[in-house]
Amino acid sequence: DCSDSERAAFEAGIKLGTIYHQFVGVPVSAENVDTLEKAIAAGSMAQPFVTDAKVKIDRSKLRKKVGQYDYVSLTGDMLDVSISIDYNGTRLDAGMRFVKDMDYPLMFVKRIQRRPG
Amino acid sequence: DCSDSERAAFEAGIKLGTIYHQFVGVPVSAENVDTLEKAIAAGSMAQPFVTDAKVKIDRSKLRKKVGQYDYVSLTGDMLDVSISIDYNGTRLDAGMRFVKDMDYPLMFVKRIQRRPG
Amino acid sequence: DCSDSERAAFEAGIKLGTIYHQFVGVPVSAENVDTLEKAIAAGSMAQPFVTDAKVKIDRSKLRKKVGQYDYVSLTGDMLDVSISIDYNGTRLDAGMRFVKDMDYPLMFVKRIQRRPG
Amino acid sequence: DCSDSERAAFEAGIKLGTIYHQFVGVPVSAENVDTLEKAIAAGSMAQPFVTDAKVKIDRSKLRKKVGQYDYVSLTGDMLDVSISIDYNGTRLDAGMRFVKDMDYPLMFVKRIQRRPG
Repeated sequence: DCSDSERAAFEAGIKLGTIYHQFVGVPVSAENVDTLEKAIAAGSMAQPFVTDAKVKIDRSKLRKKVGQYDYVSLTGDMLDVSISIDYNGTRLDAGMRFVKDMDYPLMFVKRIQRRPG
Repeated sequence: DCSDSERAAFEAGIKLGTIYHQFVGVPVSAENVDTLEKAIAAGSMAQPFVTDAKVKIDRSKLRKKVGQYDYVSLTGDMLDVSISIDYNGTRLDAGMRFVKDMDYPLMFVKRIQRRPG
Repeated sequence: DCSDSERAAFEAGIKLGTIYHQFVGVPVSAENVDTLEKAIAAGSMAQPFVTDAKVKIDRSKLRKKVGQYDYVSLTGDMLDVSISIDYNGTRLDAGMRFVKDMDYPLMFVKRIQRRPG
Repeated sequence: DCSDSERAAFEAGIKLGTIYHQFVGVPVSAENVDTLEKAIAAGSMAQPFVTDAKVKIDRSKLRKKVGQYDYVSLTGDMLDVSISIDYNGTRLDAGMRFVKDMDYPLMFVKRIQRRPG
Protein backbone atom coordinates (compact mmCIF):
# COMPACT_ATOMS: atom_id res chain seq x y z
CA ASP A 1 0.00 0.00 0.00
CA CYS A 2 3.05 2.19 -0.13
CA SER A 3 4.67 3.42 -3.37
CA ASP A 4 8.10 2.32 -4.54
CA SER A 5 9.60 5.69 -3.68
CA GLU A 6 8.08 5.66 -0.20
CA ARG A 7 9.42 2.18 0.33
CA ALA A 8 12.86 3.18 -0.96
CA ALA A 9 12.85 6.10 1.50
CA PHE A 10 11.84 3.77 4.32
CA GLU A 11 14.68 1.38 3.48
CA ALA A 12 17.20 4.23 3.32
CA GLY A 13 16.12 5.43 6.75
CA ILE A 14 16.60 1.95 8.22
CA LYS A 15 20.15 1.77 6.87
CA LEU A 16 21.18 5.18 8.18
CA GLY A 17 19.65 4.45 11.59
CA THR A 18 21.54 1.16 11.58
CA ILE A 19 24.90 2.78 10.83
CA TYR A 20 24.56 5.45 13.47
CA HIS A 21 23.22 3.33 16.31
CA GLN A 22 25.29 0.26 15.61
CA PHE A 23 28.68 1.91 15.26
CA VAL A 24 28.61 5.04 17.42
CA GLY A 25 30.82 4.12 20.38
CA VAL A 26 33.39 1.99 18.53
CA PRO A 27 36.95 2.73 19.70
CA VAL A 28 38.73 4.48 16.83
CA SER A 29 42.24 5.88 16.40
CA ALA A 30 44.42 6.82 13.43
CA GLU A 31 45.41 3.13 13.23
CA ASN A 32 42.01 1.50 12.73
CA VAL A 33 40.01 4.23 11.02
CA ASP A 34 40.40 2.81 7.49
CA THR A 35 39.30 -0.64 8.61
CA LEU A 36 36.32 0.77 10.44
CA GLU A 37 35.12 2.82 7.46
CA LYS A 38 35.28 -0.30 5.29
CA ALA A 39 33.42 -2.42 7.83
CA ILE A 40 30.60 0.10 8.24
CA ALA A 41 30.13 0.36 4.46
CA ALA A 42 30.33 -3.42 4.01
CA GLY A 43 27.77 -3.98 6.78
CA SER A 44 25.39 -1.61 5.03
CA MET A 45 25.92 -3.39 1.70
CA ALA A 46 24.88 -6.66 3.39
CA GLN A 47 21.40 -5.22 4.02
CA PRO A 48 18.46 -5.39 1.60
CA PHE A 49 18.20 -3.01 -1.39
CA VAL A 50 21.54 -1.24 -0.79
CA THR A 51 23.51 -0.82 -4.03
CA ASP A 52 26.23 1.50 -2.74
CA ALA A 53 27.53 2.78 0.58
CA LYS A 54 30.34 5.24 1.27
CA VAL A 55 31.53 6.06 4.77
CA LYS A 56 34.03 8.75 5.73
CA ILE A 57 35.22 9.33 9.28
CA ASP A 58 36.63 12.80 10.00
CA ARG A 59 40.31 12.19 10.73
CA SER A 60 40.82 15.61 12.26
CA LYS A 61 38.96 14.35 15.33
CA LEU A 62 41.17 11.29 15.83
CA ARG A 63 44.25 10.95 17.97
CA LYS A 64 47.42 9.18 16.97
CA LYS A 65 47.84 6.25 19.34
CA VAL A 66 50.90 7.10 21.42
CA GLY A 67 49.79 6.69 25.03
CA GLN A 68 47.22 4.15 26.23
CA TYR A 69 44.28 6.55 26.14
CA ASP A 70 44.94 8.07 22.72
CA TYR A 71 41.80 6.98 20.99
CA VAL A 72 38.23 8.18 20.93
CA SER A 73 34.79 6.63 20.63
CA LEU A 74 33.14 7.13 17.27
CA THR A 75 30.56 9.94 17.50
CA GLY A 76 27.95 11.21 15.08
CA ASP A 77 29.84 14.40 14.30
CA MET A 78 32.68 12.34 12.77
CA LEU A 79 30.48 10.53 10.23
CA ASP A 80 29.83 11.42 6.59
CA VAL A 81 27.76 8.72 4.89
CA SER A 82 26.18 8.26 1.46
CA ILE A 83 24.01 5.29 0.53
CA SER A 84 22.10 4.29 -2.58
CA ILE A 85 18.94 2.22 -2.53
CA ASP A 86 17.27 0.42 -5.42
CA TYR A 87 13.74 -0.68 -4.69
CA ASN A 88 12.00 -2.25 -7.64
CA GLY A 89 13.77 0.06 -10.09
CA THR A 90 13.30 3.26 -8.11
CA ARG A 91 16.67 4.63 -7.05
CA LEU A 92 17.18 6.79 -4.01
CA ASP A 93 20.32 8.44 -2.67
CA ALA A 94 20.47 9.41 0.98
CA GLY A 95 23.08 10.44 3.50
CA MET A 96 24.11 11.57 6.93
CA ARG A 97 26.27 14.58 7.73
CA PHE A 98 26.93 16.58 10.84
CA VAL A 99 25.33 20.01 10.61
CA LYS A 100 27.24 22.41 12.85
CA ASP A 101 24.52 25.04 13.10
CA MET A 102 22.06 22.46 14.40
CA ASP A 103 24.75 20.59 16.35
CA TYR A 104 23.09 17.54 14.87
CA PRO A 105 24.02 14.53 12.69
CA LEU A 106 21.35 15.08 10.05
CA MET A 107 20.05 12.24 7.89
CA PHE A 108 18.53 13.33 4.58
CA VAL A 109 17.19 12.13 1.22
CA LYS A 110 19.33 13.52 -1.58
CA ARG A 111 17.65 12.37 -4.76
CA ILE A 112 14.91 10.05 -5.98
CA GLN A 113 14.90 8.68 -9.52
CA ARG A 114 11.57 7.07 -10.18
CA ARG A 115 11.56 4.08 -12.48
CA PRO A 116 10.53 5.14 -15.94
CA GLY A 117 7.33 3.36 -16.66
CA ASP B 1 12.53 17.43 -3.37
CA CYS B 2 10.91 14.55 -1.59
CA SER B 3 7.20 14.39 -0.77
CA ASP B 4 5.82 14.46 2.75
CA SER B 5 4.93 10.77 2.60
CA GLU B 6 8.40 9.83 1.34
CA ARG B 7 9.92 11.87 4.11
CA ALA B 8 7.61 10.30 6.70
CA ALA B 9 8.66 6.86 5.46
CA PHE B 10 12.33 7.86 5.69
CA GLU B 11 11.86 9.05 9.28
CA ALA B 12 10.04 5.84 10.23
CA GLY B 13 12.90 3.77 8.82
CA ILE B 14 15.45 5.71 10.87
CA LYS B 15 13.50 5.10 14.08
CA LEU B 16 13.12 1.35 13.51
CA GLY B 17 16.80 1.00 12.57
CA THR B 18 17.63 2.91 15.74
CA ILE B 19 15.58 0.65 17.98
CA TYR B 20 16.97 -2.55 16.57
CA HIS B 21 20.63 -1.61 16.40
CA GLN B 22 20.74 0.36 19.61
CA PHE B 23 19.01 -2.12 21.88
CA VAL B 24 19.73 -5.58 20.49
CA GLY B 25 22.26 -7.02 22.96
CA VAL B 26 20.85 -5.47 26.15
CA PRO B 27 20.79 -7.99 29.04
CA VAL B 28 17.15 -8.81 29.76
CA SER B 29 15.42 -11.11 32.24
CA ALA B 30 11.92 -11.38 33.68
CA GLU B 31 12.94 -8.71 36.21
CA ASN B 32 13.89 -5.84 33.90
CA VAL B 33 11.75 -6.51 30.82
CA ASP B 34 9.08 -3.91 31.71
CA THR B 35 11.66 -1.21 32.32
CA LEU B 36 13.43 -2.01 29.07
CA GLU B 37 10.24 -1.86 27.01
CA LYS B 38 9.48 1.56 28.47
CA ALA B 39 13.00 2.85 27.84
CA ILE B 40 13.01 1.74 24.21
CA ALA B 41 9.65 3.40 23.55
CA ALA B 42 10.66 6.57 25.41
CA GLY B 43 13.94 6.77 23.47
CA SER B 44 11.98 6.57 20.23
CA MET B 45 9.60 9.30 21.39
CA ALA B 46 12.60 11.58 21.98
CA GLN B 47 13.41 11.47 18.25
CA PRO B 48 11.97 13.85 15.63
CA PHE B 49 8.43 13.39 14.24
CA VAL B 50 7.51 10.40 16.45
CA THR B 51 4.02 10.75 17.91
CA ASP B 52 3.67 7.24 19.33
CA ALA B 53 5.84 4.20 20.03
CA LYS B 54 4.85 0.83 21.46
CA VAL B 55 7.39 -1.87 22.25
CA LYS B 56 6.64 -5.44 23.29
CA ILE B 57 9.32 -7.95 24.20
CA ASP B 58 8.30 -11.61 23.94
CA ARG B 59 8.36 -12.86 27.52
CA SER B 60 8.28 -16.52 26.48
CA LYS B 61 11.93 -16.16 25.48
CA LEU B 62 13.07 -14.79 28.84
CA ARG B 63 14.42 -16.68 31.81
CA LYS B 64 13.50 -16.03 35.41
CA LYS B 65 16.68 -14.90 37.15
CA VAL B 66 17.50 -17.70 39.57
CA GLY B 67 21.12 -18.55 38.88
CA GLN B 68 23.74 -16.05 37.76
CA TYR B 69 23.42 -16.78 34.06
CA ASP B 70 19.62 -16.75 33.86
CA TYR B 71 19.21 -13.85 31.50
CA VAL B 72 19.48 -13.42 27.77
CA SER B 73 20.59 -10.70 25.40
CA LEU B 74 17.77 -8.95 23.59
CA THR B 75 17.47 -10.29 20.03
CA GLY B 76 15.42 -9.22 17.05
CA ASP B 77 13.06 -12.18 17.29
CA MET B 78 11.84 -10.94 20.69
CA LEU B 79 10.79 -7.50 19.47
CA ASP B 80 7.32 -6.32 18.38
CA VAL B 81 7.32 -2.60 17.69
CA SER B 82 4.78 -0.06 16.38
CA ILE B 83 5.60 3.58 15.76
CA SER B 84 3.65 6.53 14.40
CA ILE B 85 5.21 9.42 12.52
CA ASP B 86 3.72 12.80 11.74
CA TYR B 87 5.59 14.74 9.11
CA ASN B 88 3.95 18.00 8.20
CA GLY B 89 0.48 16.54 8.67
CA THR B 90 1.11 13.28 6.84
CA ARG B 91 0.75 10.38 9.29
CA LEU B 92 2.51 7.09 8.85
CA ASP B 93 2.36 3.94 10.96
CA ALA B 94 5.21 1.46 10.76
CA GLY B 95 6.46 -1.51 12.70
CA MET B 96 8.85 -4.36 13.21
CA ARG B 97 7.91 -7.99 13.83
CA PHE B 98 9.76 -11.25 13.61
CA VAL B 99 8.59 -13.31 10.63
CA LYS B 100 9.21 -16.97 11.31
CA ASP B 101 9.03 -18.14 7.71
CA MET B 102 11.75 -15.70 6.69
CA ASP B 103 13.62 -16.10 10.01
CA TYR B 104 13.86 -12.34 9.86
CA PRO B 105 12.88 -9.31 11.97
CA LEU B 106 10.89 -7.53 9.27
CA MET B 107 10.37 -3.78 9.32
CA PHE B 108 7.33 -2.55 7.40
CA VAL B 109 5.10 0.44 6.63
CA LYS B 110 1.58 -0.24 7.83
CA ARG B 111 -0.44 2.77 6.75
CA ILE B 112 -0.02 6.24 5.31
CA GLN B 113 -2.64 8.94 5.80
CA ARG B 114 -1.85 11.82 3.55
CA ARG B 115 -2.73 15.27 4.79
CA PRO B 116 -6.07 16.31 3.36
CA GLY B 117 -5.77 19.31 1.08
CA ASP C 1 43.44 -20.41 38.05
CA CYS C 2 42.43 -16.85 38.79
CA SER C 3 41.73 -15.56 42.30
CA ASP C 4 38.31 -14.44 43.47
CA SER C 5 39.36 -10.80 43.44
CA GLU C 6 40.79 -11.08 39.91
CA ARG C 7 37.57 -12.69 38.79
CA ALA C 8 35.48 -10.01 40.50
CA ALA C 9 37.54 -7.35 38.71
CA PHE C 10 37.03 -9.13 35.39
CA GLU C 11 33.27 -9.27 35.93
CA ALA C 12 33.15 -5.58 36.86
CA GLY C 13 35.01 -4.69 33.68
CA ILE C 14 32.54 -6.65 31.56
CA LYS C 15 29.59 -4.81 33.10
CA LEU C 16 31.07 -1.33 32.60
CA GLY C 17 32.06 -2.15 29.02
CA THR C 18 28.50 -3.38 28.50
CA ILE C 19 26.90 -0.20 29.81
CA TYR C 20 29.07 2.11 27.76
CA HIS C 21 28.96 0.28 24.45
CA GLN C 22 25.34 -0.82 24.65
CA PHE C 23 23.79 2.49 25.59
CA VAL C 24 26.00 5.21 24.12
CA GLY C 25 23.95 6.55 21.20
CA VAL C 26 20.48 6.21 22.77
CA PRO C 27 18.32 9.28 22.06
CA VAL C 28 17.87 11.13 25.34
CA SER C 29 16.04 14.32 26.31
CA ALA C 30 14.74 15.81 29.55
CA GLU C 31 11.60 13.67 29.06
CA ASN C 32 13.14 10.18 28.99
CA VAL C 33 16.29 10.58 31.07
CA ASP C 34 14.80 9.04 34.25
CA THR C 35 13.51 6.02 32.36
CA LEU C 36 16.84 5.54 30.64
CA GLU C 37 18.84 5.68 33.88
CA LYS C 38 16.57 3.02 35.36
CA ALA C 39 16.83 0.78 32.30
CA ILE C 40 20.63 0.93 32.22
CA ALA C 41 20.87 0.06 35.92
CA ALA C 42 18.27 -2.71 35.60
CA GLY C 43 20.08 -4.19 32.59
CA SER C 44 23.28 -4.32 34.62
CA MET C 45 21.49 -6.01 37.53
CA ALA C 46 20.34 -8.73 35.13
CA GLN C 47 23.97 -9.75 34.54
CA PRO C 48 25.90 -12.26 36.65
CA PHE C 49 27.38 -11.28 40.05
CA VAL C 50 26.02 -7.72 40.09
CA THR C 51 24.55 -6.80 43.48
CA ASP C 52 24.04 -3.08 42.88
CA ALA C 53 24.10 -0.61 40.00
CA LYS C 54 23.57 3.14 40.06
CA VAL C 55 23.46 5.23 36.90
CA LYS C 56 23.34 9.02 36.69
CA ILE C 57 23.07 10.94 33.44
CA ASP C 58 24.25 14.55 33.55
CA ARG C 59 21.09 16.61 32.98
CA SER C 60 23.04 19.78 32.24
CA LYS C 61 23.87 18.28 28.85
CA LEU C 62 20.27 17.54 27.89
CA ARG C 63 17.86 19.70 25.96
CA LYS C 64 14.22 20.21 26.81
CA LYS C 65 12.21 18.75 23.93
CA VAL C 66 10.56 21.76 22.30
CA GLY C 67 11.42 21.50 18.62
CA GLN C 68 11.87 18.22 16.76
CA TYR C 69 15.65 18.10 17.10
CA ASP C 70 15.86 18.97 20.79
CA TYR C 71 17.41 15.79 22.02
CA VAL C 72 20.92 14.40 22.06
CA SER C 73 22.52 10.99 21.79
CA LEU C 74 23.86 9.61 25.06
CA THR C 75 27.64 10.09 25.19
CA GLY C 76 30.28 8.86 27.62
CA ASP C 77 30.80 12.28 29.17
CA MET C 78 27.22 12.25 30.46
CA LEU C 79 27.53 8.99 32.41
CA ASP C 80 28.32 8.49 36.09
CA VAL C 81 28.06 4.82 37.03
CA SER C 82 28.72 2.76 40.18
CA ILE C 83 28.40 -1.01 40.31
CA SER C 84 29.00 -3.62 42.99
CA ILE C 85 30.09 -7.17 42.29
CA ASP C 86 30.01 -10.16 44.61
CA TYR C 87 32.06 -13.10 43.39
CA ASN C 88 32.14 -15.96 45.83
CA GLY C 89 32.07 -13.60 48.80
CA THR C 90 34.67 -11.15 47.52
CA ARG C 91 33.01 -7.76 47.04
CA LEU C 92 34.25 -5.22 44.55
CA ASP C 93 33.00 -1.71 43.81
CA ALA C 94 33.79 -0.14 40.46
CA GLY C 95 32.64 2.81 38.42
CA MET C 96 32.82 5.01 35.37
CA ARG C 97 33.14 8.79 35.37
CA PHE C 98 34.15 11.34 32.78
CA VAL C 99 37.57 12.83 33.59
CA LYS C 100 37.82 16.28 32.05
CA ASP C 101 41.62 16.54 32.15
CA MET C 102 41.95 13.33 30.17
CA ASP C 103 38.83 14.05 28.07
CA TYR C 104 38.03 10.42 28.78
CA PRO C 105 35.23 8.34 30.34
CA LEU C 106 37.43 6.51 32.84
CA MET C 107 36.43 3.12 34.27
CA PHE C 108 38.02 2.27 37.61
CA VAL C 109 38.03 -0.16 40.53
CA LYS C 110 37.08 1.66 43.73
CA ARG C 111 37.39 -0.93 46.46
CA ILE C 112 37.92 -4.64 46.96
CA GLN C 113 36.79 -6.40 50.14
CA ARG C 114 38.24 -9.86 50.18
CA ARG C 115 36.15 -12.56 51.80
CA PRO C 116 37.33 -13.05 55.38
CA GLY C 117 38.65 -16.55 55.94
CA ASP D 1 44.64 -0.14 45.77
CA CYS D 2 44.18 -2.95 43.32
CA SER D 3 46.98 -5.28 42.23
CA ASP D 4 48.37 -5.38 38.69
CA SER D 5 46.68 -8.70 38.01
CA GLU D 6 43.31 -7.46 39.30
CA ARG D 7 43.67 -4.40 37.11
CA ALA D 8 44.64 -6.51 34.10
CA ALA D 9 41.54 -8.65 34.68
CA PHE D 10 39.38 -5.52 34.93
CA GLU D 11 40.77 -4.19 31.65
CA ALA D 12 40.20 -7.54 29.91
CA GLY D 13 36.58 -7.55 31.08
CA ILE D 14 36.02 -4.05 29.68
CA LYS D 15 37.34 -5.08 26.27
CA LEU D 16 35.21 -8.22 26.01
CA GLY D 17 32.10 -6.33 27.14
CA THR D 18 32.93 -3.73 24.51
CA ILE D 19 33.22 -6.26 21.70
CA TYR D 20 30.00 -8.03 22.52
CA HIS D 21 27.78 -5.04 23.15
CA GLN D 22 29.20 -2.83 20.43
CA PHE D 23 29.11 -5.31 17.59
CA VAL D 24 26.24 -7.70 18.28
CA GLY D 25 23.57 -6.67 15.75
CA VAL D 26 25.90 -5.76 12.85
CA PRO D 27 24.55 -7.08 9.52
CA VAL D 28 26.86 -9.88 8.38
CA SER D 29 26.91 -12.15 5.35
CA ALA D 30 29.51 -14.30 3.62
CA GLU D 31 30.63 -11.15 1.79
CA ASN D 32 31.57 -8.88 4.70
CA VAL D 33 32.54 -11.37 7.42
CA ASP D 34 36.32 -10.96 6.88
CA THR D 35 36.12 -7.19 7.03
CA LEU D 36 34.00 -7.31 10.16
CA GLU D 37 36.39 -9.67 11.97
CA LYS D 38 39.26 -7.32 11.19
CA ALA D 39 37.34 -4.24 12.32
CA ILE D 40 36.34 -5.81 15.64
CA ALA D 41 39.94 -6.86 16.37
CA ALA D 42 41.33 -3.48 15.28
CA GLY D 43 38.80 -1.64 17.48
CA SER D 44 39.93 -3.70 20.45
CA MET D 45 43.60 -2.96 19.70
CA ALA D 46 42.78 0.77 19.82
CA GLN D 47 41.82 0.44 23.49
CA PRO D 48 44.23 0.75 26.44
CA PHE D 49 46.54 -2.15 27.43
CA VAL D 50 45.51 -4.50 24.61
CA THR D 51 48.52 -6.17 22.98
CA ASP D 52 46.67 -8.70 20.84
CA ALA D 53 43.11 -9.42 19.69
CA LYS D 54 41.81 -12.26 17.53
CA VAL D 55 38.22 -12.48 16.40
CA LYS D 56 36.59 -15.37 14.58
CA ILE D 57 33.00 -15.35 13.37
CA ASP D 58 31.42 -18.77 12.81
CA ARG D 59 30.83 -18.93 9.05
CA SER D 60 28.51 -21.92 9.33
CA LYS D 61 25.86 -19.51 10.66
CA LEU D 62 26.11 -17.08 7.73
CA ARG D 63 24.08 -17.01 4.55
CA LYS D 64 25.48 -16.39 1.11
CA LYS D 65 23.92 -13.16 -0.15
CA VAL D 66 21.66 -14.21 -3.00
CA GLY D 67 18.29 -12.66 -2.23
CA GLN D 68 17.80 -9.36 -0.42
CA TYR D 69 17.30 -10.89 3.03
CA ASP D 70 20.22 -13.33 2.93
CA TYR D 71 22.20 -11.93 5.78
CA VAL D 72 21.98 -12.18 9.54
CA SER D 73 22.69 -9.95 12.50
CA LEU D 74 25.84 -10.82 14.42
CA THR D 75 24.93 -12.75 17.58
CA GLY D 76 26.98 -13.87 20.56
CA ASP D 77 26.91 -17.52 19.53
CA MET D 78 28.88 -16.69 16.38
CA LEU D 79 31.81 -15.06 18.20
CA ASP D 80 35.12 -16.62 19.24
CA VAL D 81 37.45 -14.00 20.69
CA SER D 82 40.92 -14.00 22.29
CA ILE D 83 42.56 -10.90 23.72
CA SER D 84 45.85 -10.25 25.50
CA ILE D 85 46.34 -7.50 28.07
CA ASP D 86 49.60 -6.11 29.40
CA TYR D 87 49.20 -4.01 32.52
CA ASN D 88 52.48 -2.82 33.95
CA GLY D 89 54.24 -6.03 32.93
CA THR D 90 51.53 -8.43 34.09
CA ARG D 91 50.14 -10.29 31.09
CA LEU D 92 46.65 -11.70 30.96
CA ASP D 93 44.93 -13.71 28.24
CA ALA D 94 41.14 -13.76 28.13
CA GLY D 95 38.43 -14.76 25.71
CA MET D 96 34.81 -15.23 24.81
CA ARG D 97 33.26 -18.39 23.39
CA PHE D 98 29.73 -19.69 23.07
CA VAL D 99 29.11 -22.58 25.46
CA LYS D 100 26.34 -24.75 24.10
CA ASP D 101 25.48 -26.49 27.36
CA MET D 102 24.88 -23.14 29.03
CA ASP D 103 23.42 -21.57 25.86
CA TYR D 104 25.64 -18.65 26.81
CA PRO D 105 28.48 -16.60 25.30
CA LEU D 106 30.93 -17.11 28.16
CA MET D 107 33.73 -14.64 28.85
CA PHE D 108 36.69 -16.07 30.75
CA VAL D 109 40.26 -15.45 31.95
CA LYS D 110 42.61 -17.96 30.36
CA ARG D 111 45.99 -17.23 31.89
CA ILE D 112 47.76 -14.68 34.07
CA GLN D 113 51.54 -14.26 33.94
CA ARG D 114 52.60 -12.06 36.79
CA ARG D 115 55.59 -9.82 36.19
CA PRO D 116 58.69 -11.50 37.59
CA GLY D 117 60.30 -9.54 40.42
